Amino acid sequence: MNQFVNKQVMITGGLGFIGSNLARTLVAQGSVVTLVDSLIPKYGGNLFNIDDIRDKVTVNIYDVRDQIAMADLLPGKDYLFNLAGQTSHMDSMIDPQTDLAINTMAQLSILEVCRKVNPGIKIVFASTRQLYGKPDYLPVDEKHPIRPVDVNGINKLAGEWYHLLYNNVYGMRACALRLTNTYGPGMRVKDARQTFLGIWIRRLIEGRPIQVFGDGLQLRDFNYVDDCIDALLRAGASDATNGKVYNLGSTEVLDLKSLAEMMADLNGDGAYELVPFPADYKAIDIGDYYSDFSLIMNELGWQPKIGLRDGLQRTMAYYRAHYRHYWDTST
Amino acid sequence: MNQFVNKQVMITGGLGFIGSNLARTLVAQGSVVTLVDSLIPKYGGNLFNIDDIRDKVTVNIYDVRDQIAMADLLPGKDYLFNLAGQTSHMDSMIDPQTDLAINTMAQLSILEVCRKVNPGIKIVFASTRQLYGKPDYLPVDEKHPIRPVDVNGINKLAGEWYHLLYNNVYGMRACALRLTNTYGPGMRVKDARQTFLGIWIRRLIEGRPIQVFGDGLQLRDFNYVDDCIDALLRAGASDATNGKVYNLGSTEVLDLKSLAEMMADLNGDGAYELVPFPADYKAIDIGDYYSDFSLIMNELGWQPKIGLRDGLQRTMAYYRAHYRHYWDTST
Repeated sequence: MNQFVNKQVMITGGLGFIGSNLARTLVAQGSVVTLVDSLIPKYGGNLFNIDDIRDKVTVNIYDVRDQIAMADLLPGKDYLFNLAGQTSHMDSMIDPQTDLAINTMAQLSILEVCRKVNPGIKIVFASTRQLYGKPDYLPVDEKHPIRPVDVNGINKLAGEWYHLLYNNVYGMRACALRLTNTYGPGMRVKDARQTFLGIWIRRLIEGRPIQVFGDGLQLRDFNYVDDCIDALLRAGASDATNGKVYNLGSTEVLDLKSLAEMMADLNGDGAYELVPFPADYKAIDIGDYYSDFSLIMNELGWQPKIGLRDGLQRTMAYYRAHYRHYWDTST
Repeated sequence: MNQFVNKQVMITGGLGFIGSNLARTLVAQGSVVTLVDSLIPKYGGNLFNIDDIRDKVTVNIYDVRDQIAMADLLPGKDYLFNLAGQTSHMDSMIDPQTDLAINTMAQLSILEVCRKVNPGIKIVFASTRQLYGKPDYLPVDEKHPIRPVDVNGINKLAGEWYHLLYNNVYGMRACALRLTNTYGPGMRVKDARQTFLGIWIRRLIEGRPIQVFGDGLQLRDFNYVDDCIDALLRAGASDATNGKVYNLGSTEVLDLKSLAEMMADLNGDGAYELVPFPADYKAIDIGDYYSDFSLIMNELGWQPKIGLRDGLQRTMAYYRAHYRHYWDTST
C-alpha cells in the first residue's frame, strides 16, 4: 500500500514468523524497516526467516522488556507493528511471570515510551482469539464475552487493552487484530510453542505420525500468513481502525482430525494418530473455535484469499526445503 | 460466622481501610489473624486503624510484591482475604508500571505461592466495579461487558482473572467481589487516592467546601464498610462462591451533588462547590454507575444494612474524633 512507502516502520518480534513475513512485504513496498527481536530460543525469532532481505532491513537484537532499548528505537518511527509475544499457552501456565513480563508489562512500557517520545506513531498490536476462551456461540464475533482460560489469555488481554486505552485517553493511534491459527513459511516448527501446526509439520517431515489430541473433532479456523500480513497492513494504513479490535478468521472451518488427514495426504505418505488429551492441555483447551471476521471485512475490505489446502502445500514445500534451519537435525 | 473460629486468616492490605475493619471483625469471631501491609505512604495502610486490636493480631510490614515474604507467610493459612491494591485511578495513569506490579504481578505471585505450598487455602479477592468502565446499562450486573477506562481497571481485571483461573484450572478455591464506593472509619481521607469521599471528609473537617467535579449529576452507589466486611466473610465462608465474581452495591443511588449536600448538612455548617472537571480526571471518568447486586443477594443472602445517611454520620463522627491520625495537621 502506498501509505508505507519511505515510512519508518518498526516491527517487534521482527525475526519471528509473522514479523519476518511482514518485513518482506514492507521492504517490497519501499518502507524503511527496523526489526526488533530477542531471539530467545524458546520463542519464534529465527534469523533464517529474513535470509533473503537481510541487507534491506535493520535488525536489533533487543528484548521488548528492555525499556531503554525501546526508548532508543521508537522515536521517529511512523508505524509500529507490535508482534512480539510469548505465544505458548502451556509455557504461560508453567512460568506465568515471564508471560506477564513479555505480554503485559513490556506492552505497557512500549506504550509509555510512545506516549512520551512519539505519540504520533500508529500502532497495530497482534492479539489473539485466546481471549475469548471457550466460545458461548460460533462463529465468535468481537462482541463475544472475554473469558481467557489460561494465563497467556489474561496477559494478552491486558496487553491489548493498554493499546486501546492509550488510544482512547491520550489520542494515540492504536488498534488490535485478534489472530486465529496463523500458519505458513517462517513459523516455529521445532515444537508446539507457537502453534500445534508447527510440530505437526515437523513430524510429517521426520516421517512420524501427527498426534491429534482427543477425538480430533475440535473445530478451528486458519489463516495463511500472507492473509494475516494483508490484514495487518490494512489495519495500519487506516485511521478508521484507531481504538478498535478486529477478529481475523476464515470461512474454511475444519476439525483437527480432518486437518491432520489433509496434511498427511498432502505430504504423500503421512499418517496421524489420535492420542489421549494430556491433562494439562485439556485443562486449558477452548473446545471448538472459529471466528466471525465480518467486521474487518466490512470496514477494511479484508478477507482471506489463500485456501487451506493451497496454503498448507506452500508451507510444507517450504519446510521440506528449509527444515534444517528450523530444528536441530543432529539430535 | 462459625467458619472462622480458630482459623488462620491472612489479610493483605491488612492495615488499610477494609483490611483493618475485616481484621477487627475476625478477631471478635475468634480467628487467628495475620495482617500484611506495606505501609507505603501513598496507599491505605495506617497503624492507627488497628489501634484497638494491636495486641490481638500479627502484623507483618511486607509488600505483596515481595515473593519471598509471601512464600513465608502463606503456608498454613486457611483463608486469604486478598485486599492489597493500588487504588488510585489517577496514579495508575501517572505510574502505570507500579500499578501493574501491585495489582497484577503480585497477585499472580501470591497465587503461584498458594498453588505450590498451600493449594487448599480459600481466597477472597477484592476487585472493583472499575472493570466495567462506562456502563452500557444500569444497574450494572456481572454480565455487563468488561471495558476498563484506565490502567488500574485493566490491571485489577487481570488480577481478578488470575484468581478465577487458578480456581478453574488448579481446583484452588478463589472468588472475587467487585466493590463499589466503600466508605467508613479507617479509609484514607488525606487525599482522593482511595476514594473521593476521603478528601471530601477532610475538607469538611478543615472547614473548606467540598469540590464536586462537573455538574455533579453522576450517579453512584455506596457501601458502608461493615456491609462490605459482611460480604467478604460470606464469600469466604461458602464454597458456592468458588470461581465466581459478585458485585456489591446498594439500592441507595445518589448523584454526587446530592451526596455533597447530604454531607455538608450532616457536618452542620459544611458547603460544597461545583468545579470544572479536571481534564485528566474527565478522560477516565465512567459517568453514571450503580450496580445490580442481586447475584450475591440470592446466592449468599447479602444485602447492605447501613443506610447512607447513617453510615456517613458514623464516618464523620470517627474522623472528627481521630483526624489527627489521618493527615498531617501541621501543614
